[in-house]
This record gives sequence, C-alpha cells and structure tokens, in this order.
Amino acid sequence: MKKNITIAGAGLVGSLSALYMKKRGFNVAMYERRDDLRLAKITAGKSINLALSERGWTALKKVDAAKDVEKIAIPMYKRIMHDVQGNLSEQAYGNPGQAIYSVSRSMLNLVLMEKAEKLGVDIHCNQKCTDIDFETGTAHFEHTNSNEKTSIHSDLLIGADGAFSAVRNQMVKRSRQQYSQQYIEHGYKELLIPAHDNGSHKLEKNALHIWPRGNFMLIALPNLDGSYTCTLFAPYEGQESFEKLKTHEEVQEYFEKIFPDLVPLIPDLSDQFFTNPTSSMAIMRTYPWHVNDHTILVGDAAHATVPFYGQGMNAGFEDCRILDELLDKHNNNFKTCFEEYSRVRKPNGDGVQDLSMHNFIVMRDKTAQPNFLLQKKIEQKFTQLYPEKWTPLYSMVSFTNISYADAWHIGMKQEKLMQSIMNIPNISEVWDSDDIMEKMLRLL
Amino acid sequence: MKKNITIAGAGLVGSLSALYMKKRGFNVAMYERRDDLRLAKITAGKSINLALSERGWTALKKVDAAKDVEKIAIPMYKRIMHDVQGNLSEQAYGNPGQAIYSVSRSMLNLVLMEKAEKLGVDIHCNQKCTDIDFETGTAHFEHTNSNEKTSIHSDLLIGADGAFSAVRNQMVKRSRQQYSQQYIEHGYKELLIPAHDNGSHKLEKNALHIWPRGNFMLIALPNLDGSYTCTLFAPYEGQESFEKLKTHEEVQEYFEKIFPDLVPLIPDLSDQFFTNPTSSMAIMRTYPWHVNDHTILVGDAAHATVPFYGQGMNAGFEDCRILDELLDKHNNNFKTCFEEYSRVRKPNGDGVQDLSMHNFIVMRDKTAQPNFLLQKKIEQKFTQLYPEKWTPLYSMVSFTNISYADAWHIGMKQEKLMQSIMNIPNISEVWDSDDIMEKMLRLL
Repeated sequence: MKKNITIAGAGLVGSLSALYMKKRGFNVAMYERRDDLRLAKITAGKSINLALSERGWTALKKVDAAKDVEKIAIPMYKRIMHDVQGNLSEQAYGNPGQAIYSVSRSMLNLVLMEKAEKLGVDIHCNQKCTDIDFETGTAHFEHTNSNEKTSIHSDLLIGADGAFSAVRNQMVKRSRQQYSQQYIEHGYKELLIPAHDNGSHKLEKNALHIWPRGNFMLIALPNLDGSYTCTLFAPYEGQESFEKLKTHEEVQEYFEKIFPDLVPLIPDLSDQFFTNPTSSMAIMRTYPWHVNDHTILVGDAAHATVPFYGQGMNAGFEDCRILDELLDKHNNNFKTCFEEYSRVRKPNGDGVQDLSMHNFIVMRDKTAQPNFLLQKKIEQKFTQLYPEKWTPLYSMVSFTNISYADAWHIGMKQEKLMQSIMNIPNISEVWDSDDIMEKMLRLL
Repeated sequence: MKKNITIAGAGLVGSLSALYMKKRGFNVAMYERRDDLRLAKITAGKSINLALSERGWTALKKVDAAKDVEKIAIPMYKRIMHDVQGNLSEQAYGNPGQAIYSVSRSMLNLVLMEKAEKLGVDIHCNQKCTDIDFETGTAHFEHTNSNEKTSIHSDLLIGADGAFSAVRNQMVKRSRQQYSQQYIEHGYKELLIPAHDNGSHKLEKNALHIWPRGNFMLIALPNLDGSYTCTLFAPYEGQESFEKLKTHEEVQEYFEKIFPDLVPLIPDLSDQFFTNPTSSMAIMRTYPWHVNDHTILVGDAAHATVPFYGQGMNAGFEDCRILDELLDKHNNNFKTCFEEYSRVRKPNGDGVQDLSMHNFIVMRDKTAQPNFLLQKKIEQKFTQLYPEKWTPLYSMVSFTNISYADAWHIGMKQEKLMQSIMNIPNISEVWDSDDIMEKMLRLL
C-alpha cells in the first residue's frame, strides 16, 4: 500500500519536500497555515528575496525543478561595498562565473507549489496545526476561517513549517526534547529601491551590495523588475539603533549621515521606514529532529538561523536531498532512516547557524577592511594554484555540497593559517610573490 | 485602590509569593492547575521531599511562616556516604549545629497554602492557564473538569507555575524572549525505605545518605514517619542505565551488586522500581523574567534546575524575598521594579543552575574520594580560624544569603586555590599543620 505523507507548511522547504516525497511514489498532502499564496497579494517587509546557491541548486536538480527556477534567478558574481563617502570596492564571490542567485521568495514558492500540485500533491491552505498526538502519529488542524477541525493520521508527518514551527513546538513539550531560541540584539527592516522609469536597475545588477558599518549594515539584492530589496540590520537599542529613529527627520538624518549614496535612490525613504515592520532574528536549535518513525523536522523548523550567510533556504533544501538519500539507503525504513537523519544532520544545522553568526561579522565589519579584501585575494590566488588543497570558506559553503559542519571546521583552520600570513610585516607589498604561496603550502 | 494580584500556581513558590503579596496589602488570588492539595491523596514518585536551607528560612521568616515549618523539618547535619561494601564515611555540612532540613513537599505546601488562605488569599484549583493577552495583561484559565473558561484581568500576573510554566510558555512565543531547555542524560526514580515496625528510622536519622557511584548515585532523605525517600539518579542509556533494567531479576541483581546495603532495607524493591515512574531532569533558562509592568516569573518558571544542590525551592523562595525588597525600593512602581528584578535576579538563576550541575559531580563522584573529604576538612579548619576570609562554597550556598552568582564565582576561585594546596606532595600527613593554614592565607 502507498504510504501517506502529511507535510505541515507549504513554504519553500515544504513544497520541495513534497516534490521529493511524490517522486518516491508516496501520497502527499500539504497543510499550510497561511492563505493560498497563489491567491494572496504579495506583501513587502518580510525577507522577500533570497540567495540561492550550489546546495539549493543541487537539491532542486534532483527533482527536476532547477530549470523552472533558473528563469527567475539573477546571478550575483560579487559583493560591492559602499563606504560612507559613497566610494565602491568589490570582491568576487568565487572563480569567474561562480555566483549566488537572487530569487524572490514568493515567486520561487509559487514555482515549487505549482509543480507539486501538477504532480498530484494535495494542497490545503488556511490549515493551522493545533496539536499532534505523538502516540498515534495524528496531526490536528483547524481551518483559520471556518474553524473546522481535521485530524490526519498518516505514515509520516513532516514539519516544514518554519522558524515558529507548530510541529516542533509540540515536540518541545515532550520530555527530553532539547530546545533553545536565542534572539540576537539586531532587528531588520526592508526597504525598496524602485527601478528607473525605464525598468532598469539603479545599481550594478549582478552583485550583492553591502553598506558595512562596523556593528551594523545595510544590504541590497536585485529583483527581476529592476528594483532592489534592501535590508537594514541594526541593533534594537543603543547607539545608531532602531529605538533612536522615532521621527521622519531622525530617519532622514540617519540615512544622510550613514548611507548618503542610498538616499537619492529611495524617494519615499522615511515613509517606507515607518510602514515596514522591524523584525527580530533568532537561532533556534532542537534535538532530536524526529519522533519515532512518524514525525520529522526539515528546514527552519529544525534549525532556524539568522540570515547572514544566505544559507537558510539552501540548508532546508539540502535536508530534503539528504533525507531522500537516507530513505534510499534504509529502503524506506522510516525508523532507522530518521534516527540516522537526526544524528547526521544535526551537526550541519549547528554548522549553518555558526557560519551565519560568523558571516554577520564578516559582512558588517570585515568587508570594509582593506586587509580582509587582501586576505581574500591571497586565498583566491592560492586556490587557483592548488584547487585540491584549498577551497575558501565562502566557496565551500556557497559553491559546493561539502557538509556545513566540515566547512565550518576547515574554515576555522584556514582562518588561523591566514592570520599568520596576514601578520607578515609587509604583506600588502609581497602578497603576490611565490614566497607567500610556498609559505601557505608549507603551513597547510 | 488596592491592587489585584493573580498568581498562576499554588505550589511552594506560588503560595509563598501569595503570603508576600498579601503582606503588602494587595488582593491576591491563586489559580492552580492541579486538584486541591488539601483534598488529594499524596502520591509517591515525584520528589516528595526537599532540603530547606538558610535562604529558604530567611524568606519564610519575613512572612512569619518559619515557625510553622520548623515543626515538620528534620535537620541533616552531615552527609553519610555508603560504599559498595556497605562501609560508611561522613562529612559535616558546616560548623557544629549547621544543618539543611528535610521537609515533605506536600506538607510544606499545605502549611503555606493554609496560611495564605487564612490571611484571605483566594485559592482556585483545577484552573489551567490556557492563554495570556500580554497587551492587556489578561490571563485566561479553563477549569480542568467543567471546561468553564475564566478571564482574569489584574494588575499583576505572577507565573509561579513551575518548570513547565504555562505563563513562561506564553512568554516564549513573544519576539525576543530568550529560552532554552536542556535535558541531562540522567533520569531519576524514587523508592521508599519504610520505617521499622516501631516507627523508628532504619538509617541514621539526622543525615543525608549518599551512595556515590561515579557517573550516578542514589540518595536518601529522612521523613517524619521514620521512612526515607530514596532517589536513584542514573543515565537513561548505556552502562548501568535505566534501559538495562527491564525485569525484576535485572533490578534485583543491579541493586545487590551496586547498592548491597540498601537491599535489605526495601522489601518490595523491584515492585517499587516498576511502579514508580522514571522522570527526566532539565535546566531551563529564559530572559527577561517580566513583561512590561504586569507579568513576572518566579521560581522554577524562571530558572528550573536539576535538583543536585537541593536549592530549587530555596532559590524560588529567595525570588519572593528579593522581589519584596525591590517593591519597597521602587515604592510599588511595578515597571521599574520588574526591570530591575529581571536584571539582578537572572545571574542568580544562572548561578543556581551552574551550582546544581557542579554539585551533581561532587555528590555522585567526589564524595567517594578520600582526597575530596580531606580537602573539605582543610577548608573547614581554615574557615574556623579565619571566618571572615573563607566560607566554603557549600556553606555560602546553604548557610548564607550571599547571592548564587557571587557564591559560584568565589567558589570557583577557592577551588583553584585548594587545588594547589591538595597538590602538596604529602598533604594527607601535613594538612593539620600551621604551615598549611599560613600558605592558604598567603595564597588568598
């Protein structure tokens, strides 16, 4: 008999896991708390674009979804840094041709949901998961408009319902379920740079723009329609924080002082500032990621992260691919498969979270330092000479499928080695010499 | 107008905080999820005795509740260690006359609840807190039998509802609320040593008995009726763990091998073993401990800990006393008072948790080591010579009101100093000499 799979959440990871489960020949139904994305008006203010990288593409390809997504993805080959005087500097993300891709969350979701529906996945919207009976593996849903209650008993419940996962919240009530939520002191707010009247981009299109300011930053990612989605990451309290920006004048002054080249690009800057919400960010950890043979967590539900490596979605997509591999390995034996899934995947959830916190400091602070840009140039040169011996951390994370845990571990070792290279007194003059490359080779 | 205070939870800390709030002249009502303790049959298996120490007494005295509690408290002046051969050794907890006190949880609760009721506190049982509206400060309760719903708007909601606090769980859903629950790998199970037929105790009465076994242990605390409540702390999985004890024969064999002198004291040992539950233990942390000027957490709701210092209740009682002091200091201004309460009390919640984890290792492992007992003797001698210069960690925690955070900090520094004393080659021969005391004085 065909196994029945219930997926809580029809977001990005829920929809992709539906494609994976359908491909295995299971019956699949998705239950989504929100309105049907296909009917709803898309609202600004909540991380509406994302950076898709190698892991994401790998997971999409395995269910033949990459082609559809390519059409809506904009390659970003480099970071462009904007300093307080409006001067630009830049840093390539990887080798020529390597890029991360800006995609709209809602457009990507639409593509995946429609593909799932076409393959026969049932999609139920406005269904809120209210309770789970872990003894019997029964999930209870309530319609958010009619309040009608539905109880679903299936062979597997997949919690793909995001950072505030109802499935995980039910698991956290169970004895011995580890859990933590750690909010950082920064909040974020989105702002939109509209396109030129002719629909063209106001900034260089194929790049991720950063305004690094030490303890905080602003970033901008390109959209297909010529606009950019900007995100301001700033502390809630203290110096140059959200709490200090209470009036239109204060906002205008703040941007003119700190992000002067941005001001002419956003005509209704302070209106947007007060219309769009300020949102919090957290790292959420739990263990295990499964209950018996009938419930598992994927994506943010298992390992919600702060957004600074652009890897949240990619990590969730990778969960789907790895789970698929493990189901092959265990011949669809859910019990043994899920035990291994929890055990092998958890260090990578931790890894992507550690990487994300680390990259916040890189983006907001390091990218403004000439020494950091020099270090990245030296690493890039070395990796071109000895590609088998060195892949820079950013490339391991963004352009390979090396596990996050391994990438983090190797990256920290590389960083230590590079510190001794960067401590060479006249490194900025001699960095391009053979000596330096030989020294790195010896130190490895 | 008199302020109205709602307390979620009529347990130990809830009842004591009711006494404190009543004493301030507020109207106080307690809402308890469970059956009325005064009507219910007391069931074994859930930590039915506790160790009351100085902080607990201090908090009880301030609301004139100490006299009533003295009648039901048994002083324990020392630890008595039982080795695998049944040999005994012992260690005084403090100076002569200093003791921690074994009390029955249910009897203590009864004393405090009845005192509260006599003073005019309203007590509502079978009332489960289902939701809180933090905008308006309204708590929603549902009667666990009739399902009747009640909404209570009051000036202050005190979450005194324990480790699985419904009030805290609602706070954890709020943005930027920090939270973690960390279960340890050990579980616990209670067992009862009955009294002799004549009602006398089968072991030395005025002591806490420990069977330290390295990675695990068993303890016994005296009850008024001549019985002892034992608690076995053992890992859930692995060597000599709960998972290995599936049959009556396995249990009998385990106890005969590991706790042989206990076996004759508990005639129905393996029956008790399979009747009583195995329960988990966790450290739960959250921050802040308040919402605006209308909700606060006290006791386990704010800082649930593993039980190994016997300080969980004492810390909760101390919360009530400190809160009372802060309400004096802030002239009953809830907003500023609660901000300070969260800020100053949180490090002590962390402190009692760190101390508790530390003392697990002391109890289960260190108390079996001659060197540890010698170290404690040296410290005891030094503290008698120089009482202003040295209070041993255990004494700071159990016999003073020094803050937990300070005790932990000072204790770790003392431990470092004592390591250098214990490393003196022939310390076991020379420990009683003036030289050693002078050396400690110099090292301080």
